Amino acid sequence: MIKHCSVIDKRFPLHDGAGSDAIHKNPVYSYTVTQLTDENGLTGTGLAFTLGEGNDLVCRAASFYAQQLKGKDIEEVMHDFGSLFRELSNEQQFRWLGPHKGVVHLGLASVTNACFDLWAKRRGVPLWRLLTDLSPEAIVNTLDLSYLEDELTREDAIALLRLNKEGMSERTRIIEKGYPGYDTSIGWFNYSDQQVQENVKRAVAAGFSALKLKVGSPDAERDIRRANLVREAAGDAVKVMLDANQQWNLPQAIAVCHKLQGIRPYWIEEPTHPDDILGHKILANAIAPTKLALGEHVPNRIIFKNYLQSNCVGFIQVDAVRVGGVSEFITVSLLCRKFGIPVVPHVGDMGQLHQHLVLFNHISMGHRVVFLEHIPHLSSYFVHPAKIRDGVYLTPQEPGSSCDLKL
Amino acid sequence: MIKHCSVIDKRFPLHDGAGSDAIHKNPVYSYTVTQLTDENGLTGTGLAFTLGEGNDLVCRAASFYAQQLKGKDIEEVMHDFGSLFRELSNEQQFRWLGPHKGVVHLGLASVTNACFDLWAKRRGVPLWRLLTDLSPEAIVNTLDLSYLEDELTREDAIALLRLNKEGMSERTRIIEKGYPGYDTSIGWFNYSDQQVQENVKRAVAAGFSALKLKVGSPDAERDIRRANLVREAAGDAVKVMLDANQQWNLPQAIAVCHKLQGIRPYWIEEPTHPDDILGHKILANAIAPTKLALGEHVPNRIIFKNYLQSNCVGFIQVDAVRVGGVSEFITVSLLCRKFGIPVVPHVGDMGQLHQHLVLFNHISMGHRVVFLEHIPHLSSYFVHPAKIRDGVYLTPQEPGSSCDLKL
Repeated sequence: MIKHCSVIDKRFPLHDGAGSDAIHKNPVYSYTVTQLTDENGLTGTGLAFTLGEGNDLVCRAASFYAQQLKGKDIEEVMHDFGSLFRELSNEQQFRWLGPHKGVVHLGLASVTNACFDLWAKRRGVPLWRLLTDLSPEAIVNTLDLSYLEDELTREDAIALLRLNKEGMSERTRIIEKGYPGYDTSIGWFNYSDQQVQENVKRAVAAGFSALKLKVGSPDAERDIRRANLVREAAGDAVKVMLDANQQWNLPQAIAVCHKLQGIRPYWIEEPTHPDDILGHKILANAIAPTKLALGEHVPNRIIFKNYLQSNCVGFIQVDAVRVGGVSEFITVSLLCRKFGIPVVPHVGDMGQLHQHLVLFNHISMGHRVVFLEHIPHLSSYFVHPAKIRDGVYLTPQEPGSSCDLKL
Repeated sequence: MIKHCSVIDKRFPLHDGAGSDAIHKNPVYSYTVTQLTDENGLTGTGLAFTLGEGNDLVCRAASFYAQQLKGKDIEEVMHDFGSLFRELSNEQQFRWLGPHKGVVHLGLASVTNACFDLWAKRRGVPLWRLLTDLSPEAIVNTLDLSYLEDELTREDAIALLRLNKEGMSERTRIIEKGYPGYDTSIGWFNYSDQQVQENVKRAVAAGFSALKLKVGSPDAERDIRRANLVREAAGDAVKVMLDANQQWNLPQAIAVCHKLQGIRPYWIEEPTHPDDILGHKILANAIAPTKLALGEHVPNRIIFKNYLQSNCVGFIQVDAVRVGGVSEFITVSLLCRKFGIPVVPHVGDMGQLHQHLVLFNHISMGHRVVFLEHIPHLSSYFVHPAKIRDGVYLTPQEPGSSCDLKL
């Protein structure tokens, strides 16, 4: 039984341009940390991610949801978590503040993630193990599929998981091999050309075969110069992704993306505003076959449904510390599987939680292995920091979702 | 110069089922009230609307923005308000919590509205007068048109306003005649059949020629019975609108809307989730020529742009206490004018602010007169409550935007 709930506002200043992009010049990586403690002293930890200012608002929203869990047994909660999620996310007064987006939905993410963490700890297994051991029905019981009835009913979701039982044991080999990572930290926006060059060489030497550069400069020439510089330093075999962090309007995006196609980017990420579904469609058509990646700022399953239906996205970057936690992450992953689009999460959690989720997506859902973003800046603050070796995430073995922070 | 900023959390319990709908069973109408006081003691009042729980979060977000206005002169602020809006709404850390949606954007609405109110009070005129007297350039200076470059550039906006100078003097007759209202309070969700019938008769006797009924019951038969009851009681000449408050999923919406078409609704409002642009498009095609109305929960200009581009909405219900205040309301109204779609605001402000804005939309933008929602439940709390006579809003004459509350 959950005896105690607390929510903590944790902020970690970054240094020397780390974390900077075209819009976020000086972020303070921050977590809304929900802790749910049961009668045995087990504590489930859940995160939502922000950039500092306003993290206290998310904490208050999380507290509102968390207090409603007091006195409940985690196994009972998780047996039908989808219903609880639906109830909490539609609480009739709080719902007005979204619905299903912004501060309140970030708060719900933190609480949802704490539930999944506590569940795995209660069972004494890492989250990926818990999830991959669940039956299709038990998985779908943790999901709220409302407003997806036109694309993914409960029956569809169960059938999709059943279908992917085939090949599952082969796919479990990923546990031993580890899930590949990619390096986001070679080219933060504020880094100098020389820093970027050195970082590329270091990343390639460390075994990464995919790297990401921040673009979206007011001066497109800077973007092009830096993109070429990364391509040259990395060589032709390395995948290079470009991330504009919403900095372009649609006409700019079309113009600059055309110029950036010269370096053969594996994807172009967040070219414009995350709400502009039709704009992304126009852009995707204009720059095909170059693919778009997005989802970092997309708050819920309904908008992801629209993106998938409009067929404008090559990679979905749903983030379990932005949408309504692990539950809605799984929902979006199922939608993506239906539409044949890979999930390559944005890692507001620094990959701690998502290293579990990409294993589950691959093993149980049959999603193909791409790679998982790797950002090392907060690793010293985690109790069990993600381990990456030769560019590959080593599969976590500790019980839970690896989100405990040294508080 | 703005010397003092304060933000107040005001909540007004409702009684006997007033305000209830399919999702919001027991709302507490609440305002985040921003007050900006200048060196002459003039106070600009701005509102954002919520349903109670979490209004304190919006207050904190509003405070964050409001404190950045201290020491600024209101005339200088409004001379280029579009730039300030853009800067505030993209504050690099706070932006993560949206962007441009949810709690932070509601907070910005409250602050923006306080600026427009103070501006009108400084000039000693009602807001509608201030706005209709502005040059096209001065109006567009108050707007942030970013992410609309594919549909509405600054030049487009100015040209649209210039074009509508023609006929303007004739359209100012609306000032004398007053803007028609419609009655939302005949059919709140929790009202009994008998209450609804009595309310319809009272509303028609009071001069209203348009009425709204809440639908979205779990039992579609209840919706159909009540809709027929309203049609019968109101007669054929009265317009009847049906509002589902997002209660249906897409397959349900298609099925129930087909059944409700029998009463010839003037529109069907918020049939499903406000983020589901493509879902609305499918529904609109399925139930044409019946028109959809939506916007009450749409947070920003970019999503409205997508709704307009997809050509699925017959009436846009942008609410200046949901989007980023008067500024973004005007932006969305310009977009609607371009697309030929009427603006019929949702009135989280109880019509206090919107009675000014619909006059401006008609006079300066050439929007056709439809009618403005009328909800009387909070009128006793306003210093200058909207006056409605024979179903028509009497044009407000007091300086400002009529949003001062008896605090």
